[in-house]
Amino acid sequence: MKQIGIIGFGKMGLNLAKNIKKNNYDVIGYDLNKTIYKELDNYNIKHKNEIKELIQSLDKPRSVIMIVNSGKPTEAVFNELSSFLEKGDCIIDAGNSFYKDSVSKYNLAKEKGINFIDAGVSGGPSGALNGCCIMAGGNEEIIKNYNDFFTKICVPNGYLYTGEPGSGHFAKMVHNGIEYGMMQAIAEGYQIINNSNYNFDLSKLSTLWNNGSVIRSWLVELMVEVFKKDPNLNNYSDVMSMNGEGLWTLQEALKQGTPAPIIGLSVMLRQNSTQQNNFAAKVISALRNSFGGHEIIKK
Amino acid sequence: MKQIGIIGFGKMGLNLAKNIKKNNYDVIGYDLNKTIYKELDNYNIKHKNEIKELIQSLDKPRSVIMIVNSGKPTEAVFNELSSFLEKGDCIIDAGNSFYKDSVSKYNLAKEKGINFIDAGVSGGPSGALNGCCIMAGGNEEIIKNYNDFFTKICVPNGYLYTGEPGSGHFAKMVHNGIEYGMMQAIAEGYQIINNSNYNFDLSKLSTLWNNGSVIRSWLVELMVEVFKKDPNLNNYSDVMSMNGEGLWTLQEALKQGTPAPIIGLSVMLRQNSTQQNNFAAKVISALRNSFGGHEIIKK
Repeated sequence: MKQIGIIGFGKMGLNLAKNIKKNNYDVIGYDLNKTIYKELDNYNIKHKNEIKELIQSLDKPRSVIMIVNSGKPTEAVFNELSSFLEKGDCIIDAGNSFYKDSVSKYNLAKEKGINFIDAGVSGGPSGALNGCCIMAGGNEEIIKNYNDFFTKICVPNGYLYTGEPGSGHFAKMVHNGIEYGMMQAIAEGYQIINNSNYNFDLSKLSTLWNNGSVIRSWLVELMVEVFKKDPNLNNYSDVMSMNGEGLWTLQEALKQGTPAPIIGLSVMLRQNSTQQNNFAAKVISALRNSFGGHEIIKK
Repeated sequence: MKQIGIIGFGKMGLNLAKNIKKNNYDVIGYDLNKTIYKELDNYNIKHKNEIKELIQSLDKPRSVIMIVNSGKPTEAVFNELSSFLEKGDCIIDAGNSFYKDSVSKYNLAKEKGINFIDAGVSGGPSGALNGCCIMAGGNEEIIKNYNDFFTKICVPNGYLYTGEPGSGHFAKMVHNGIEYGMMQAIAEGYQIINNSNYNFDLSKLSTLWNNGSVIRSWLVELMVEVFKKDPNLNNYSDVMSMNGEGLWTLQEALKQGTPAPIIGLSVMLRQNSTQQNNFAAKVISALRNSFGGHEIIKK
């Protein structure tokens, strides 16, 4: 495989494309949003105005990476792709798709003789650019053709064939669930440090913790620069957004009957932080007022 | 400072002593448990039979590291040390003491002109041996005399003067609180992976996650070898013991009024796992039986 089509140039897709091009693959791109094409020109990345054109311009058997938002955008691109692709071609979904959707797509594609790989990509935009971590599921014989490709765009030992279709996105989903819990634990620790009577330099403490301590991790590393630039986190919001993988992990755990209290609570704390109007908190306030006559205090 | 007394040769103390000796300090040891002295002889580490003797054999001003269990053992050693040490000497508590106890000891020692440093040591026995992470609190002028020493026995950038007395043990306490939450999140993720219908190789997946992924961390690194040797964790118990720092972190958070739901839940899950007889679970079972006639199922 020397040539690859890429669909989707968000912050992950664009950096992944640069990474792939750097590794001497011929990249041809497509995005609904044509304003990104100027950026592609800057990096000498070819692009087409329609998915059909993109496919016509690729040598057979074709390989196309799709890296768009999960759910409807992924479904739409997959449907269009599979209507144009031919037997022996291969779709690689490098987005954060729900693993069961990826199993369905694998089966749908297979009916047409099209191959499908679910590739969970971790490492954020910087990883996508400089070397990422990919967990890929699908047919082992097919994936062999892409081992070299995946190995090149990942950091050393950062690529693994995880097994059956869906296993790549399953592993990525659980990875993100773990990430939610780790982040919440780290966040609570920093808040206790910050609310103490001591005058800790949180950036220096983060550097320290990353050198020889038990909690050394990339997440704590990221906080070194954040705290250096903005010790009170004035530039950040306490609304904790999320994409979906943490919630899926919790739903999977519930379906399995596997307790996941920390991951579950981390998901709910994210949900809680986005509420404009916390009805449950108002119920508590109403009950305290009703049984105890306690004052209703507004923020 | 070229010579140091060390009290306490548990798995941390022994390795720390080897590390210190390797850095060309003259080490003289003491332990209540004399059976460890044979091991000290193997490493040419001198030892004395009484704390008093140890102190008499050290050049003034003396430096003594105590690394014994927190609570009563630490209190006992501190009391004996401070009865023998003289003005200008220095005690370094390298154990996991509660930070408020360390503030008390700093003040008690100060009354006699004895210096006291609270040094939180992270990295486990392997770190103690090969380079650890030390967060040290106390008087800045005094600690300056030990900067070179701490720097030598730590990994690069693994030593930080954290500020006022108690701040070293405070930072270590919160570090361990974070550790509890991170470990629980990682553990739940592995369980969901393990209970899935896929056939993941948990050792290979751990290696993958440590290369380029967002959750790369020393804790996940440790699991690579664990899963390689024992994929089903047959050699381990599901009783999750703990020492105290996680609980202290939770208590500190509650006292501050700082919410720490993940750290708190992680502590309680540990407590839950050690219960021989879960009375709360039996209450649920009794209520289900009482209101719904549901069968009482034994494990």
